[in-house]
Amino acid sequence: MYTRSLQELIDSFKMLPGIGEKSAERLAFYVLEMDHDLVDNFSSALINASNNIHKCINCNNLTEDEICSICASTQRDKKTLCIVEDPKNIVMFEKIGTYNGMYFVLENLISPIDGINPEDVGIEKMVRLIENNDFSEIIIAVKPTIEGETTSLYIKKILENMGIKITRIARGVPVGADIEYIDNLTLIRAFSERKEME
Amino acid sequence: MYTRSLQELIDSFKMLPGIGEKSAERLAFYVLEMDHDLVDNFSSALINASNNIHKCINCNNLTEDEICSICASTQRDKKTLCIVEDPKNIVMFEKIGTYNGMYFVLENLISPIDGINPEDVGIEKMVRLIENNDFSEIIIAVKPTIEGETTSLYIKKILENMGIKITRIARGVPVGADIEYIDNLTLIRAFSERKEME
Repeated sequence: MYTRSLQELIDSFKMLPGIGEKSAERLAFYVLEMDHDLVDNFSSALINASNNIHKCINCNNLTEDEICSICASTQRDKKTLCIVEDPKNIVMFEKIGTYNGMYFVLENLISPIDGINPEDVGIEKMVRLIENNDFSEIIIAVKPTIEGETTSLYIKKILENMGIKITRIARGVPVGADIEYIDNLTLIRAFSERKEME
Repeated sequence: MYTRSLQELIDSFKMLPGIGEKSAERLAFYVLEMDHDLVDNFSSALINASNNIHKCINCNNLTEDEICSICASTQRDKKTLCIVEDPKNIVMFEKIGTYNGMYFVLENLISPIDGINPEDVGIEKMVRLIENNDFSEIIIAVKPTIEGETTSLYIKKILENMGIKITRIARGVPVGADIEYIDNLTLIRAFSERKEME
């Protein structure tokens, strides 16, 4: 139906998440109408991102150097560590700008049903980072699912004899949400973790 | 916020239609997790499609050769020509498989409001194709919008002294559609172009 190059481009787009047959065709046809220079840039951007970006040797954040820009910065609060499950979450936290400490990105969340056990979350590297620094607080900021809870408890257990305060980000009703659309588990948490008004 | 290579990849994805900031970030992060080989293929597919695909010298269909697979085929009905507005439509018509004639792809539909005048639709190339062949029927298969209608009437005027039957694909209520959701113009057409039941 399509010429060979066009079919190969459609197939490439189809590999991407959320892109089905129709969207892949639409994107491929769009590429045919793009300036060659822009297509060249796109093509190089794929290769460069794939080749140049890797994990920070300290914290697993994405970087093109040996250590990431946050670990390398002298402007950060070196006493606080925030543990996240994905480098994307660092970007989100940095965008809101409330947090100015260090980060550590877990390899995985524990999920026995998917065959992901405690030894797969990358705890040794985290412990090494903590031992090599002088943190006074460790904030666990993984999602409040079963996997997130299991992982949080596991991390707490590992760290609890190190004499560092361990906290986790608040769980409750999201700002702006209608109570009637919130799931039961969140509502139960919102009650049990209620706070006195100041 | 992002490393340079990552930002460039996000920017590349954002150039594509229907892909906003969030989707571009999601796709770029996905690429980072893909096998290098697959990213290489994707990168080459972009360049190859952009460089190798061009218009058929006869009919404007997409091809990687001088003439497209339909013009080059000996299995097609060389007496019928179908005029479409976009190479994508050829793919759609070929998928349904009812039509086995030749095609011609217009450069544009006439749209004075967008500054697209009769001289911009690529009529000369179409006339040349018709003069060099022996068509007995020309089917106009452009969309039934104001631009499509204007272009159809213009083409009919150009061709009407050539002694070739000129038809256009039927307009009416789409199969499976609810009458209450059909626009007025389509309903007016559906009445005025009603057919005796056989």
